Amino acid sequence: MRKLKNEELNRISEEEYKSAEKSNLCIVLDDIRSMNNVGSAFRTADAFRVEKIFLCGITATPPHREINKTALGATESVDWEYQKDVHALIKELSQKGYVIASVEQADKSTKLDQFRPDPHKKYAFIFGNEVFGVNDEVVSNSDLVIEIPQFGTKHSLNISVSMGIVIWDFFSKS
Amino acid sequence: MRKLKNEELNRISEEEYKSAEKSNLCIVLDDIRSMNNVGSAFRTADAFRVEKIFLCGITATPPHREINKTALGATESVDWEYQKDVHALIKELSQKGYVIASVEQADKSTKLDQFRPDPHKKYAFIFGNEVFGVNDEVVSNSDLVIEIPQFGTKHSLNISVSMGIVIWDFFSKS
Repeated sequence: MRKLKNEELNRISEEEYKSAEKSNLCIVLDDIRSMNNVGSAFRTADAFRVEKIFLCGITATPPHREINKTALGATESVDWEYQKDVHALIKELSQKGYVIASVEQADKSTKLDQFRPDPHKKYAFIFGNEVFGVNDEVVSNSDLVIEIPQFGTKHSLNISVSMGIVIWDFFSKS
Repeated sequence: MRKLKNEELNRISEEEYKSAEKSNLCIVLDDIRSMNNVGSAFRTADAFRVEKIFLCGITATPPHREINKTALGATESVDWEYQKDVHALIKELSQKGYVIASVEQADKSTKLDQFRPDPHKKYAFIFGNEVFGVNDEVVSNSDLVIEIPQFGTKHSLNISVSMGIVIWDFFSKS
């Protein structure tokens, strides 16, 4: 077997990306402290054609050198918008018909391996602060909570990794 | 819905972890430059009970403050070993019956969504350097190359995210 060179990967251009079909998934980053995590969200979203990234609360916005260290330019391909108030945003997305799904550990969560996205629906996955998780009120107002089952000694995965897992999982089941 | 408190997550202790059943998966980190990626490997491996992490070449080893910033103590639960020479390690794992699977973009790769792990076999997933990828000779000597299909403008995902995706995917299919 032979590794492919970058030019053999046949990636699409930013222009082609803008008009390409997207997945039925938006992601919402609320009060994310680390710009490394914001950049990683863009890079992962680019790979799996996430429809749009919403940045809320204290989450930093592009252009920023620290975001681009991990985004590596994906802030130019993926559509994004800053909305300060996550509650207003969720209400708006809900009215537009999106299924609001917090990614958290909660008492009535749906385990990721049991989650089957409805191909006729659009989803908004909410990710919260690195330490405090998704805002309690947002969790309460979600249509469902998706939980990545974990079997180790630690309480949680890091956010970039969690985003990678749930976005890939959604993509591969769609 | 209500978020669970850390004590409600019922995570196991380090002692329980050591004797708990592990998955049929080892991971090999060869020439990984970033200690953030090494730490993330431990944290993800802990969650999905990876059997063992092999650290090769220039990959830094615990204990190290920079590794623990992301590992958050998972270097104490997950079994690991440093083996300088990745080629010797792969030969040894192969002789022990492990399926050697490089995670790369290659000409005869198996796309991750098509990959079905054999429940009767053990696997070693190889991850390579952040810029240069998995060593060419290692790719050539692998039993298979697993490729995460990507549909955006960028050439690759970051290593922590790639590890999260393939380890979750293996776990959820096992």
